[in-house]
Amino acid sequence: MPGSVFKPGDRVSLRTVEAGDDEFLRRHRNDPTVRRPLGEVEPKTAADVAAYREEVVRGEDGLTLLICAEGDPVGLAFLFREEPRSGVAELGYWLAPEAWGDGYATEAADLLCEHAFDERALHRLSARVYEGNDASANVLEKLGFLEEGRLREANVWGGERRDTLRYGLLAREWRANREGRAD
Amino acid sequence: MPGSVFKPGDRVSLRTVEAGDDEFLRRHRNDPTVRRPLGEVEPKTAADVAAYREEVVRGEDGLTLLICAEGDPVGLAFLFREEPRSGVAELGYWLAPEAWGDGYATEAADLLCEHAFDERALHRLSARVYEGNDASANVLEKLGFLEEGRLREANVWGGERRDTLRYGLLAREWRANREGRAD
Amino acid sequence: MPGSVFKPGDRVSLRTVEAGDDEFLRRHRNDPTVRRPLGEVEPKTAADVAAYREEVVRGEDGLTLLICAEGDPVGLAFLFREEPRSGVAELGYWLAPEAWGDGYATEAADLLCEHAFDERALHRLSARVYEGNDASANVLEKLGFLEEGRLREANVWGGERRDTLRYGLLAREWRANREGRAD
Amino acid sequence: MPGSVFKPGDRVSLRTVEAGDDEFLRRHRNDPTVRRPLGEVEPKTAADVAAYREEVVRGEDGLTLLICAEGDPVGLAFLFREEPRSGVAELGYWLAPEAWGDGYATEAADLLCEHAFDERALHRLSARVYEGNDASANVLEKLGFLEEGRLREANVWGGERRDTLRYGLLAREWRANREGRAD
Amino acid sequence: MPGSVFKPGDRVSLRTVEAGDDEFLRRHRNDPTVRRPLGEVEPKTAADVAAYREEVVRGEDGLTLLICAEGDPVGLAFLFREEPRSGVAELGYWLAPEAWGDGYATEAADLLCEHAFDERALHRLSARVYEGNDASANVLEKLGFLEEGRLREANVWGGERRDTLRYGLLAREWRANREGRAD
Amino acid sequence: MPGSVFKPGDRVSLRTVEAGDDEFLRRHRNDPTVRRPLGEVEPKTAADVAAYREEVVRGEDGLTLLICAEGDPVGLAFLFREEPRSGVAELGYWLAPEAWGDGYATEAADLLCEHAFDERALHRLSARVYEGNDASANVLEKLGFLEEGRLREANVWGGERRDTLRYGLLAREWRANREGRAD
Repeated sequence: MPGSVFKPGDRVSLRTVEAGDDEFLRRHRNDPTVRRPLGEVEPKTAADVAAYREEVVRGEDGLTLLICAEGDPVGLAFLFREEPRSGVAELGYWLAPEAWGDGYATEAADLLCEHAFDERALHRLSARVYEGNDASANVLEKLGFLEEGRLREANVWGGERRDTLRYGLLAREWRANREGRAD
Repeated sequence: MPGSVFKPGDRVSLRTVEAGDDEFLRRHRNDPTVRRPLGEVEPKTAADVAAYREEVVRGEDGLTLLICAEGDPVGLAFLFREEPRSGVAELGYWLAPEAWGDGYATEAADLLCEHAFDERALHRLSARVYEGNDASANVLEKLGFLEEGRLREANVWGGERRDTLRYGLLAREWRANREGRAD
Repeated sequence: MPGSVFKPGDRVSLRTVEAGDDEFLRRHRNDPTVRRPLGEVEPKTAADVAAYREEVVRGEDGLTLLICAEGDPVGLAFLFREEPRSGVAELGYWLAPEAWGDGYATEAADLLCEHAFDERALHRLSARVYEGNDASANVLEKLGFLEEGRLREANVWGGERRDTLRYGLLAREWRANREGRAD
Repeated sequence: MPGSVFKPGDRVSLRTVEAGDDEFLRRHRNDPTVRRPLGEVEPKTAADVAAYREEVVRGEDGLTLLICAEGDPVGLAFLFREEPRSGVAELGYWLAPEAWGDGYATEAADLLCEHAFDERALHRLSARVYEGNDASANVLEKLGFLEEGRLREANVWGGERRDTLRYGLLAREWRANREGRAD
Repeated sequence: MPGSVFKPGDRVSLRTVEAGDDEFLRRHRNDPTVRRPLGEVEPKTAADVAAYREEVVRGEDGLTLLICAEGDPVGLAFLFREEPRSGVAELGYWLAPEAWGDGYATEAADLLCEHAFDERALHRLSARVYEGNDASANVLEKLGFLEEGRLREANVWGGERRDTLRYGLLAREWRANREGRAD
Repeated sequence: MPGSVFKPGDRVSLRTVEAGDDEFLRRHRNDPTVRRPLGEVEPKTAADVAAYREEVVRGEDGLTLLICAEGDPVGLAFLFREEPRSGVAELGYWLAPEAWGDGYATEAADLLCEHAFDERALHRLSARVYEGNDASANVLEKLGFLEEGRLREANVWGGERRDTLRYGLLAREWRANREGRAD
């Protein structure tokens, strides 16, 4: 059975991740265009995906939701390294290549920010982007994330050392942005 | 469900190894023409193959991928004895006999080199070939591997002691070769 | 799925032993004409056979293969008490009664000798035959095994104490025989 | 038995952490002046410390060493979140209050940098400091770490939200510094 | 109780490794001058050493013996990656720094060769030496090992990539050397 | 506490093996002059000897007894591969070098034969001797064992392939010998 809607939006919704999504997850987590910006270099078999769903998706560190557009899965959005006491977490997401360019990532990340700040009472969200991944940086900047640092030569991509950009967004900033957009 | 594409190429692709591939793996891992160049002398039952898939394919030491041509499995390619800190691993592969002679092994090994050097950030790949296995040596030499040593009388093949040849390829060499081919 | 061919021959092939062979194994391991020359006096239930397949066939001491003629199982061939360091093992086999008299045992044992000497690098094979089991002694003698000893009154067969004959074959003898046959 | 010297230095040495150090670890990990700059808010019982020693100190993620001055324990130095493939890790340390002000932290961190770059072949080390912890920032700056970012309001200290400073040091920078000091 | 003599020699003997040797092993396995030529970068606590003794020393892959001079431990000698069927293994050893320069390593390695070839029936021994470790290369060359290959840039030592030298010695070569020395 | 007398004799007695004998067992099982005629090539640590005592000595396959002379341990005698239904077992023994030459082995083996035939109701005992081990062959011949076979090149000793001699003794032969000696 398809996942239930956890956080509805205009064009996309964030749904629970279910066994029926395994094939979607497996295909894209192995796709180099999806996994390389995430720094993932291990193949994921059907059994790996099932274990990921059981251990990570159902685990207690953050949350993982399926991004759906018109009812079909188009990607994944997640909070991880959540520290409830400090009120911080990291935000992550990926989209299937056929869903790129439609603004789905931005809408999905925005929904997850709303959930994080309004429901989980977080104070700030962090995100990291490998240097050169402009699509991902654009999503963050549209949501109001500020570039807060550049960890020099902290990752290897395409055989070359690159910097890792650190972004941050505070709850009050996100709320101010929302009001600005609502005007 | 068939394996997902992990590393796509022109004529062959490297896919995840799944339960549906067990029969293919079992048939060829028992075939003397396939297993003898690998030094394998133990029969592999269906249960052995399932355990191999669970323990080795899904294990954390290196990676194992199915070589597919036109969507059908034709062999296996793997990295093993990977030491991420030293940046080294060993490369291995085998093809089903009906797929010999079409250059599939060379293309599959080249794809795995690209993954190893560009994504896994390895510095060097090693390979070992039993003396007399010219087909395997040819694949390595086409990719730019250099013969670095000859371990005298280190294996037994066909009832006779033979040398084991040691090959090595550095990331910068592979990249220079790639550029040369691209011209 | 039926077992894979591990060692192909002219009329018989040696295949991996699979769950689908349990019924064949159970029927013949309980048949007195098969089990008595092996000194087996315990009934083997379906569960016993499954455990045997899991523990002995998949175990690491020697190897066990199904003898097939025209694709159908006709018996079992095995190496046991293998000592790789000393380069020795014992050879054993049995045939279903309906397959007796066609030379299958000799061809199967010969295939296993070839595997033992050429691939497993063994130096010698031993075999033991209960006094009076002329069919089994004939198989060994055709392969070039020499009678090396007679352990007096070492077994009980048909209610009588009998001697156990010890046979041995060295790798170089088997190879010389092979060349003689090839002429 | 007291820990063995793993990395010797002029005034301090880095030693293995042993059961005999539990009392030292417990006393200081509970001390607010030590644990607050580390963001630690949970009491550590003797059993917690023993579990920490078994799971973290003996674990495979990074390494943990006792800082000793004149043979006596004065603090702890550690690498964590080590990613051998990317060649990165985070550096951490703490000193017992009675050992502050003698430069032990700087010497200990320098020894750990030398180990990280020369033996573990790491490419870069990261460190994080809570805004206002000038002592810790001084240690990093003496070693050549550069401030690479400021994660706004990412921690809570003394009841106030503060920024977390991110520092980084590359292997080649550390080596150039070492040569400069040697002159 | 101190270890029993397993292989006696003129000045050194090879003894079983016992719990009473843990302190000796821990001190030297952490000492950078001992562990760096072995490529070991992890601290070894008392618990690690006890686990090593239980899992490696008592394990079934090769063998590990204490090198003693005048009854006192001075180092460790071991065979690993032993493949009895192929008749090959790798030789390793280390000496405590205070025992360097007395020829103990050569005598200990020679005793282990004698055990490997005469008792374990091995056909060849391999050894690997990091480029620049002349002391270890000298030991091997005195025993008659030949340099068989040079794996380019296969290890990192002192922050620099170095080659790994591969050495090999055949049983018949060792025996001829022994006779030459006996003259 | 020392072992209890299980089978008393004139000069030697066979006693139960106890923890207090571990040091004696360890010293001699590692001594090349004792272990090589037994084909034993693995070092035995204190923990190995304790496990041997627990698993083999207390095990259900045959029996193991300490040979004592004047109350002091001088060796070990054992029955193994016992098949109660066939009435057969193999006899083994070893003596500490300082106890050689006094006839202790012969007396101990004779006591064990008496126990095997009179108490265990065995019909025959087997023994195997490596070619060239005349001391062991002499013990067997004094007890009336007949050489029943010669397994060609079945072991490796001192780096050379040697034959293994098979000996056998029937209960009625042993009884006739006893009567002859009693005359």
